[in-house]
Amino acid sequence: MSQYLSSKYQGLEPYVPGEQPKMAQLIKLNTNESPWPPAPGIAEAVRKEAEKLNLYSDPECTELRRVLADSLGLKPEELLITNGSDEILNFAFMAFCDQAHPAAFADITYGFYPVYAELYQIPCRIIPLREDFTLAPEDYRNLSGPAFIANPNAPTGLALKREKIREILESNPDQVIVVDEAYVDFGGESCIPLIREYGNLLVTRTFSKSRSLAGLRLGFGAGQESLIRDLKAMQYSTNPYNVDRLAQAAGVACMAEDAYNQEMVREVILTREWTADALKSMGFSVTESRANFLFVRHPDLPGDTLYRELRERSILIRHFSKERIQDWNRITVGSPEQMRKLTDSIREILEARKA
Amino acid sequence: MSQYLSSKYQGLEPYVPGEQPKMAQLIKLNTNESPWPPAPGIAEAVRKEAEKLNLYSDPECTELRRVLADSLGLKPEELLITNGSDEILNFAFMAFCDQAHPAAFADITYGFYPVYAELYQIPCRIIPLREDFTLAPEDYRNLSGPAFIANPNAPTGLALKREKIREILESNPDQVIVVDEAYVDFGGESCIPLIREYGNLLVTRTFSKSRSLAGLRLGFGAGQESLIRDLKAMQYSTNPYNVDRLAQAAGVACMAEDAYNQEMVREVILTREWTADALKSMGFSVTESRANFLFVRHPDLPGDTLYRELRERSILIRHFSKERIQDWNRITVGSPEQMRKLTDSIREILEARKA
Repeated sequence: MSQYLSSKYQGLEPYVPGEQPKMAQLIKLNTNESPWPPAPGIAEAVRKEAEKLNLYSDPECTELRRVLADSLGLKPEELLITNGSDEILNFAFMAFCDQAHPAAFADITYGFYPVYAELYQIPCRIIPLREDFTLAPEDYRNLSGPAFIANPNAPTGLALKREKIREILESNPDQVIVVDEAYVDFGGESCIPLIREYGNLLVTRTFSKSRSLAGLRLGFGAGQESLIRDLKAMQYSTNPYNVDRLAQAAGVACMAEDAYNQEMVREVILTREWTADALKSMGFSVTESRANFLFVRHPDLPGDTLYRELRERSILIRHFSKERIQDWNRITVGSPEQMRKLTDSIREILEARKA
Repeated sequence: MSQYLSSKYQGLEPYVPGEQPKMAQLIKLNTNESPWPPAPGIAEAVRKEAEKLNLYSDPECTELRRVLADSLGLKPEELLITNGSDEILNFAFMAFCDQAHPAAFADITYGFYPVYAELYQIPCRIIPLREDFTLAPEDYRNLSGPAFIANPNAPTGLALKREKIREILESNPDQVIVVDEAYVDFGGESCIPLIREYGNLLVTRTFSKSRSLAGLRLGFGAGQESLIRDLKAMQYSTNPYNVDRLAQAAGVACMAEDAYNQEMVREVILTREWTADALKSMGFSVTESRANFLFVRHPDLPGDTLYRELRERSILIRHFSKERIQDWNRITVGSPEQMRKLTDSIREILEARKA
């Protein structure tokens, strides 16, 4: 910190993204990226768009909002496109939380929520998940500020049924309920069909996971028009041209090939299921994941030990030091080949410890 | 606004970007874009990078920072790459301004500064430019918070010599002085050589103008390491992967072809000079622009009249309703052909009024 940084940031601990090491031959299962390349038409779409880069991008993302709205059964005015879903979450913290409206979220969830709260000096109400990591809607009654609910949740992978979210929406008509659906395409139940019913619902989504576009930074928020207008005011007050031309063109090309993405998602789900079975057969507890990762614990193998031993074998998974989950690890579902190497390596590690 | 928007935003008026109309055949001289396509190698660079979009971008922008640092005579640690220079300005307002540290800037300057201040409830000290639109360093003595100085300034085009900025840096050792050099390559004097001398200097830059990449959203801040660390804390607390893979690859490709960009800049400067002469010969006052635009006024032609009459002829320029400059217009320097059409049209407009 320099002497010039505002003193209000004394407690700020910026988000720590999953490691992006430059080791060759690494099997990278730590940041929930897709093991599959993006839809084939994207490369040509961005090559073509590159010729127009001397002109600003459309700050309204008109074409991308149109194709996205069509696919979701919404109006373009019910969508705001952002530079990754982190940006729409950032806007939601800015727009709807303040001293009088604390942010509510689980103790075990996306690690960025407390960072936004600290950044904007927003008080937090941390609502612990139940013993089995499930979220109980009755714990979210009569909130005094917005709630941020990752569904499916990370790193647990557990998903809430839409009707459970409805209970939370119903019991908090004066608070925005943000449902962060980064992982929903891998088996969750989306709340987008509830948008027309609830003016307090904001759904956030990303192209990073199920559309194999983590490196493109494309996300969006969906909600009733008045809510979207509030978030747009945040965009136009920070960075109106937040989504560049190449990202918009790639997004449109990606939507035109959504059958490809759906196929990749099916492949990830199949791989997740057999990997989960393989790990269970080795004695792991594995949560019922509806995401593109598994959350696992072994009774004889501390979480950080598994993390370190796999790293020595060039396999990177995610370990969190937070006490409640320090025995657990989050493992991205990679390609079948990567997951075979993972399960083989874990088998070796377990056998070596027995010996 | 919805019922959910925090009441602190009651006075917020988001930035209004220059119009991006979808009229065909339009000569667009309203948002200071380059009339020239970006460096030829960029298209192939982004096509190739598109295949890796399933993986997150490097949040450190390692390669781009390295080539940029080399070209500027700085260390990579003295740079932070952002999603356009609006984002680095946003981070600077967040990091260095607060209730006790008001933001100082001119009455006539980049219209986004007051928006950031209002967004973060930062008090402002507006320092009027002198009668001839020049900025007098003595007006910036003993500030109690950061100053934001566009140099060259927009929309006036006027530039301050480096030694004038040095006076402001010297007289405010406890305040960050942000020098916004979006237009510096068109004839300004950069303050980057002062960075090693002044820990309170932050220089911001963009690839939008002199590198023909407005649609890519790539900007950066340069300053001593401790200042850059503060700004990085803002990045990692809002959107760590703010610069996508395609933008990083395009930025690197662009730096490899910087001779092309320099040639385009020379062309713009030549065109600016003869256009200025042509307008002066028609009776216009034209400021001494060191940017890729002209700031002009005609004694017999109100600013909004010129704007409207040119628009009817499919030529779009920028008019500001602010009282002090309502007689003026800002005209982007386009291609020679575009500027010939502009000057021909203005000649017609003036002759029609005489008749």
